[in-house]
Amino acid sequence: MTEIDIIGSGHMARGIATRLLAGRHDVRIIGRNDSQMRDLIESLGPGASGAYMGSPITSNVVILAVPHGATREVLLEYGDGFDGKVVVDISNPVDYTTMDRLTTSPGSSAAEETATMLEGRAEVVKAFNTTFPKTLVVGTVAGQPLDVFIAGDSEAAKEKVSAAVARSGMRPIDVGPLRWARELEAFMLLIMALQVNPEHEHFNWDTALKLLA
Amino acid sequence: MTEIDIIGSGHMARGIATRLLAGRHDVRIIGRNDSQMRDLIESLGPGASGAYMGSPITSNVVILAVPHGATREVLLEYGDGFDGKVVVDISNPVDYTTMDRLTTSPGSSAAEETATMLEGRAEVVKAFNTTFPKTLVVGTVAGQPLDVFIAGDSEAAKEKVSAAVARSGMRPIDVGPLRWARELEAFMLLIMALQVNPEHEHFNWDTALKLLA
Repeated sequence: MTEIDIIGSGHMARGIATRLLAGRHDVRIIGRNDSQMRDLIESLGPGASGAYMGSPITSNVVILAVPHGATREVLLEYGDGFDGKVVVDISNPVDYTTMDRLTTSPGSSAAEETATMLEGRAEVVKAFNTTFPKTLVVGTVAGQPLDVFIAGDSEAAKEKVSAAVARSGMRPIDVGPLRWARELEAFMLLIMALQVNPEHEHFNWDTALKLLA
Repeated sequence: MTEIDIIGSGHMARGIATRLLAGRHDVRIIGRNDSQMRDLIESLGPGASGAYMGSPITSNVVILAVPHGATREVLLEYGDGFDGKVVVDISNPVDYTTMDRLTTSPGSSAAEETATMLEGRAEVVKAFNTTFPKTLVVGTVAGQPLDVFIAGDSEAAKEKVSAAVARSGMRPIDVGPLRWARELEAFMLLIMALQVNPEHEHFNWDTALKLLA
């Protein structure tokens, strides 16, 4: 059975793990918060296991389900532990104090920053930054499967992630090289700003972006 | 009956006019290409009229259904003819030769450039940049009403546009001040790149972006 490692034990880890388990992947939650990690594994049920932050990565795909600001610390802690892996960056580098700007520089993105920090030793794939935890747990939105926009410079790495996404009942959309993470992250700033805007009473972190045809 | 002026007689003019007429607005097509303008009016049917480029704007809302690169020329031609109007910028400033960059500067947008050129003499509203002509003509996508993302600095101007959008059977989503046109335009670069990518055989300029909940 394909195993996927998820670093982080928060809402996004829960959402992604729920879907991956529904697709009959084995999921390992690697958490810094011991009790939160154990609670999550217990509620996820069969197929979920846990490990402490710093435990060696045993799968080929590791999902960084941590805030963008915590990525550097995780990469430093793991050193060469991600070498040769597919590293999935799901983050949205939003300035949460203002909700109207990104913390990344123009012409870059969180995913590209992660790739730069990894210095080519791992393949970075952007995915899951447009899916909120609530919709991931449910698995559909308004009766539609979730869209997962995927960007990356390695076709093989994107295929691995796309296959896992499809098997988990979602629709992978390969949008091209990793540079497209810029547009994915920028648009989610707009979408997140709508969630916190009280004028939009129907948008409560339970929306999903769909490309319908 | 509310009248709306549309400058341009191409595919976007056709799509937007089709929806506005379905909402029982009167629509005037102001075109530079005489025969194209007449053909469009004829196919739109009752409620549609035409005028030559440069004819005075008689409505309160004028939609610039021209490519971003043609906006400056239209504004110069109209001089103070847009003063006090709501000017709707629908453009996507995409570099169509590469399909991987915008022609605007980081930290700006086509809509903001239009507002700058108008020097505060008109209220600029961003709308319809995420809706492709084919879906506008049909009016729905996958059985769902189209979402129209709307940005602008004037609440009154946005309310006028939102009311017309809602009356025309679409869902207006007010995303905030005009600066959010940056994210709307950036994301459409990504979406347009998907339409021309032969790997995505199901995306053929007939998709629509929906925010489902």
